[in-house]
Amino acid sequence: MRKLITGIREFQSSYYQEKRELFEQLGHGQSPRVLFITCSDSRIDPNLILQAEPGELFVIRNAGNIIPPYGSANGGEGASMEYALQALDIDQIIICGHNHCGAMKGLLKLNKLQEDLPLVYDWLKHTEATRRILKDCYQGYEGDELIEIAVAENILTQIDNLETYPIVRSRMQQGRLHIYGWLYEIESGEVQAYNPATEQFELPQSQLYPEDMGDQQEIKPGRFVKSSAPLVKAVE
Amino acid sequence: MRKLITGIREFQSSYYQEKRELFEQLGHGQSPRVLFITCSDSRIDPNLILQAEPGELFVIRNAGNIIPPYGSANGGEGASMEYALQALDIDQIIICGHNHCGAMKGLLKLNKLQEDLPLVYDWLKHTEATRRILKDCYQGYEGDELIEIAVAENILTQIDNLETYPIVRSRMQQGRLHIYGWLYEIESGEVQAYNPATEQFELPQSQLYPEDMGDQQEIKPGRFVKSSAPLVKAVE
Amino acid sequence: MRKLITGIREFQSSYYQEKRELFEQLGHGQSPRVLFITCSDSRIDPNLILQAEPGELFVIRNAGNIIPPYGSANGGEGASMEYALQALDIDQIIICGHNHCGAMKGLLKLNKLQEDLPLVYDWLKHTEATRRILKDCYQGYEGDELIEIAVAENILTQIDNLETYPIVRSRMQQGRLHIYGWLYEIESGEVQAYNPATEQFELPQSQLYPEDMGDQQEIKPGRFVKSSAPLVKAVE
Amino acid sequence: MRKLITGIREFQSSYYQEKRELFEQLGHGQSPRVLFITCSDSRIDPNLILQAEPGELFVIRNAGNIIPPYGSANGGEGASMEYALQALDIDQIIICGHNHCGAMKGLLKLNKLQEDLPLVYDWLKHTEATRRILKDCYQGYEGDELIEIAVAENILTQIDNLETYPIVRSRMQQGRLHIYGWLYEIESGEVQAYNPATEQFELPQSQLYPEDMGDQQEIKPGRFVKSSAPLVKAVE
Amino acid sequence: MRKLITGIREFQSSYYQEKRELFEQLGHGQSPRVLFITCSDSRIDPNLILQAEPGELFVIRNAGNIIPPYGSANGGEGASMEYALQALDIDQIIICGHNHCGAMKGLLKLNKLQEDLPLVYDWLKHTEATRRILKDCYQGYEGDELIEIAVAENILTQIDNLETYPIVRSRMQQGRLHIYGWLYEIESGEVQAYNPATEQFELPQSQLYPEDMGDQQEIKPGRFVKSSAPLVKAVE
Amino acid sequence: MRKLITGIREFQSSYYQEKRELFEQLGHGQSPRVLFITCSDSRIDPNLILQAEPGELFVIRNAGNIIPPYGSANGGEGASMEYALQALDIDQIIICGHNHCGAMKGLLKLNKLQEDLPLVYDWLKHTEATRRILKDCYQGYEGDELIEIAVAENILTQIDNLETYPIVRSRMQQGRLHIYGWLYEIESGEVQAYNPATEQFELPQSQLYPEDMGDQQEIKPGRFVKSSAPLVKAVE
Ligand SMILES: [Zn+2]
Ligand SMILES: [Zn+2]
Ligand SMILES: [Zn+2]
Ligand SMILES: [Zn+2]
Ligand SMILES: [Zn+2]
Ligand SMILES: [Zn+2]
Repeated sequence: MRKLITGIREFQSSYYQEKRELFEQLGHGQSPRVLFITCSDSRIDPNLILQAEPGELFVIRNAGNIIPPYGSANGGEGASMEYALQALDIDQIIICGHNHCGAMKGLLKLNKLQEDLPLVYDWLKHTEATRRILKDCYQGYEGDELIEIAVAENILTQIDNLETYPIVRSRMQQGRLHIYGWLYEIESGEVQAYNPATEQFELPQSQLYPEDMGDQQEIKPGRFVKSSAPLVKAVE
Repeated sequence: MRKLITGIREFQSSYYQEKRELFEQLGHGQSPRVLFITCSDSRIDPNLILQAEPGELFVIRNAGNIIPPYGSANGGEGASMEYALQALDIDQIIICGHNHCGAMKGLLKLNKLQEDLPLVYDWLKHTEATRRILKDCYQGYEGDELIEIAVAENILTQIDNLETYPIVRSRMQQGRLHIYGWLYEIESGEVQAYNPATEQFELPQSQLYPEDMGDQQEIKPGRFVKSSAPLVKAVE
Repeated sequence: MRKLITGIREFQSSYYQEKRELFEQLGHGQSPRVLFITCSDSRIDPNLILQAEPGELFVIRNAGNIIPPYGSANGGEGASMEYALQALDIDQIIICGHNHCGAMKGLLKLNKLQEDLPLVYDWLKHTEATRRILKDCYQGYEGDELIEIAVAENILTQIDNLETYPIVRSRMQQGRLHIYGWLYEIESGEVQAYNPATEQFELPQSQLYPEDMGDQQEIKPGRFVKSSAPLVKAVE
Repeated sequence: MRKLITGIREFQSSYYQEKRELFEQLGHGQSPRVLFITCSDSRIDPNLILQAEPGELFVIRNAGNIIPPYGSANGGEGASMEYALQALDIDQIIICGHNHCGAMKGLLKLNKLQEDLPLVYDWLKHTEATRRILKDCYQGYEGDELIEIAVAENILTQIDNLETYPIVRSRMQQGRLHIYGWLYEIESGEVQAYNPATEQFELPQSQLYPEDMGDQQEIKPGRFVKSSAPLVKAVE
Repeated sequence: MRKLITGIREFQSSYYQEKRELFEQLGHGQSPRVLFITCSDSRIDPNLILQAEPGELFVIRNAGNIIPPYGSANGGEGASMEYALQALDIDQIIICGHNHCGAMKGLLKLNKLQEDLPLVYDWLKHTEATRRILKDCYQGYEGDELIEIAVAENILTQIDNLETYPIVRSRMQQGRLHIYGWLYEIESGEVQAYNPATEQFELPQSQLYPEDMGDQQEIKPGRFVKSSAPLVKAVE
Repeated sequence: MRKLITGIREFQSSYYQEKRELFEQLGHGQSPRVLFITCSDSRIDPNLILQAEPGELFVIRNAGNIIPPYGSANGGEGASMEYALQALDIDQIIICGHNHCGAMKGLLKLNKLQEDLPLVYDWLKHTEATRRILKDCYQGYEGDELIEIAVAENILTQIDNLETYPIVRSRMQQGRLHIYGWLYEIESGEVQAYNPATEQFELPQSQLYPEDMGDQQEIKPGRFVKSSAPLVKAVE
């Protein structure tokens, strides 16, 4: 505790003094551009990794960076995401998993958690799809390798889950929202991003994101009205 | 009631007599190839439309042909689907909506249902994503046209919802499952199928389904092990 | 899939052509007289068994033809039933179980389902009353015989469950709704109906249903106002 | 508080001294014969009304003497009832409502409770069936008369709800359990019991309860095995 | 049953005759001063122990005298408590556990309940905090001694749980509500009250309750406005 | 997105290079000393404020820094907290609210959220106790002042909620866990800590925390065994 209080003093006498203007301005409101969803793991510091200043990242953190499917949980995940999109008009979501994730290790020995970590056990049920895929599709794998696969698959599960939320589906159909899957490697400080085209995690700069959205962007019409064609093609 | 009992007699003296062998064989088990999910609407008769005999279609029916996202409901939808895939090894799911759907009409005036149809009101919350898309992306539409759009969007919402189920995600990654969106038009008896390539509903025969799965089909390995390449591409 | 598309073509060139008028009329609305609740099992084709045309049967189908008690589930069962009674004014419900039911087989070995069929496991909890009765009252039975008993008891459990729904209780008290328990035998194509008087399943025509309801039917007053007598009999 | 402590002293110096033996014996266990379910209302004192000593009545009390349908609530009602039947082998349940019940008054103006009594509002949803019947079947009634009808109908709703619990259904089928509906009138100290034959509440002594169960009672076999007849009658 | 009906007759010809006036007055409404929460155990008769007349105690009873934390259960506990505080303006809550409590015995062998007492098993999860404390802090204890400790800790768990309810937290902050933990000993008829100062259960008269609340009581202002000082102390 | 990728590069070439050893060591595991629970608000950067390095703070973030009472939510809050305490053996929890909190602004106009922010509306129900206290105890307050009070009260609500979790109650009774309420002021970068003694938020260094826990700390025995005295004091 003493160390923490000393930390606050240091912050105030150094960083805060330099950036006082920024802090005063933030007192009038926030307008972050990114919703960053990551694990509670102490080794991840989102603002540090992204060299982002206060005001830039709206952050959701829980064990395993899990977003349960729409309607399946009444915790803070859905609500915080809804706030980010609806109230703050954020148009980018990054789901950032990380290697050596304790939650994913737990997922691989799920049945052993029931006694000592009953809430973690229940919570990991929301990413049961990840567990099922590991069991069905990666049968020869084990140890660290399997954990790394779990981390990667888990990120994609959360992207699928996110897409069941009304506001997410609507914004995506409008072309107003993009979701990225990231994987942070603790030792190397490296980030890799999921590339749907190659179905691999790759260094983010190697990808071309055509949608790097500027203000000139147009909102797309609904899928079934995009042309003058009838809703369903006529029967010839 | 009398009419129904007469119907049973007719069935037994005609169809049953002709196909007695089929029925006796079905007494030993079922092995349907298709899970057919459709609305409870009385105007839909799946076996008739598809000219399918007893034993061919495993059928889930509820108002609005809705499959809530994984974990969000404890009704029969998820369980019946799981039974079809896991116990019966079915590899095709058809979600079949229909025009003039009463559930979709209800969705468009949702707040009016709370008093007289409270359970329908709660149930339609599971397809809130459809309602949101209608509100956000189809603002100029109304009346029958909006209902038809609701029916079409609702089918796609259910496909997204299905993809949050562990067994569905796993089977799809293995290439062992395909999901189709169909739209049945009551007056014409016509069916249109969603074509992801064109993002339109089209006559099903106009689509090429490369995956028309035969027994020779190989199960795909997990996405992150498909080549000898490392899980994540190396940093050059 | 190809077979299904061929089926649709056949339907359209044969049945649809004959009955085109019916289909066109159905485009204007449905007014079914019966809510038919049955299992998802592919061997059951309600319209075939009852020789009913499109428009006659409002159908709910799930694994095990289960209707959870009021308030205990948020799936489509209660909502679809409410829609049938409130929006369509249906006054007959048939719960139709069937022999060789896979869901009932599952119920008899419930604890083995938890790993491979977790959603089925959870779903069958809604018919735990059936399981309990089998355990307590049918201790000498096993194998096929026990399954057939499970099917029969399960039908009666659902009738009890149905009677907890507000609209069902109200309509029954008004004499505006009747609920029937049916048991379909796959090999013989035979239906038996539960007779509350004998507490047995019997051929339906052997029962006298006094309530075969015509339009002349009067709505009964509330139970506690049926005579000029005071609500509770006076103390002499 | 002072008054209560004085009360305890009085109890100890009078009643306890007289019945010390009873209390010492109760220290070794309880074996009540009746589960008494009633309202939390301060005007009801079950042991007083029934002149029952400690050890005779197992008591569940909540606002409105409501037992939600099986599976619909996770409060203490179902568990306490299960404990009474399974652990204590109680074979009689009395649901005892009372006139002037505040919970029933609340039910009649349900929508006004949402702001100030949100938990009561949610709780009364479990007896929505009562509210629906009042609305549908007692349209000319109001004021005190309607409240009394609400109390009476509410008792019957709870009996229906009780019958959805596995242990209740099983015990009833075995003939090992009876459920009674009682109505207590505060001013007169009078109790009336529901008579299913007349469908009225009557003075309890005017009813003949054939089942006044003694130890000689035989447990009934399952409904579908009661004769040598086949499960379902043979088709002639 | 016969015994009960005889009991009612006795009550009416003796107690009721003596106190007829009280009963008639109670017909006009209740104004109890105490919410008494206790176990369903048949050996507890709250009005007897406290020598309280009808109209004095608003009573909630369930197996184990458990009040689940706010929002975690939809049974009658929270609603009945809310009714007591909001509708009846009660300002004292007594949670009264008792020795030899069957629910606490169940808690100590929780995993054995799952098969035979599934609802009790689920219900006791609401007092998991008690179980955890027993496991962690009382490792050398067993048998009767451990049960007595369970009873005592369970009472304190419920007090903590009560304090999560909005109305309880608000009333306590206003100084308008007091909560007492009591422990009733069946053999001796003795009550002991929890004394937060000594952290022991003691005879209630040995405690000084300064808050023995009379009508002269002032409602306290919110905690953060109690002086003219700023909300947070100024930084010097 | 481009800005973020540039940020990662900067991080890697500067901070990561300097601290490469720390990161490599963190690859072998985390052992944070503090669970830091704060709002998702982009203006809060916990590691910056506390000048904490990667590996020091286990972090839960959601809109409003809310921890629902035990058992009332199935989101990530309880599980992540349980992981911190049980798996990582953390012994300090800091709940850190902040001024200008959007979630608290939402709480003050809760009913307006239902249409546009339905998930936020549901989520804030978990801090209904805060809303109730504001309504009951701070009637003369409004605007910014009321929001600041909401932030402060909300922190205390969460501390109460935390104390319903089994592991929290057990660890607190053992003296192995401390919970702190902090309030961060965005403009000034200042933190104030709740002081239970004065019931005010104060600069943290002005408080004496006797429990600044070192390794020499002894685990306290259970409350009811702390002396040789009997569980309940003997009656003299
Ligand atoms: Zn992690
Ligand atoms: Zn429909
Ligand atoms: Zn079946
Ligand atoms: Zn009452
Ligand atoms: Zn007890
Ligand atoms: Zn905030």
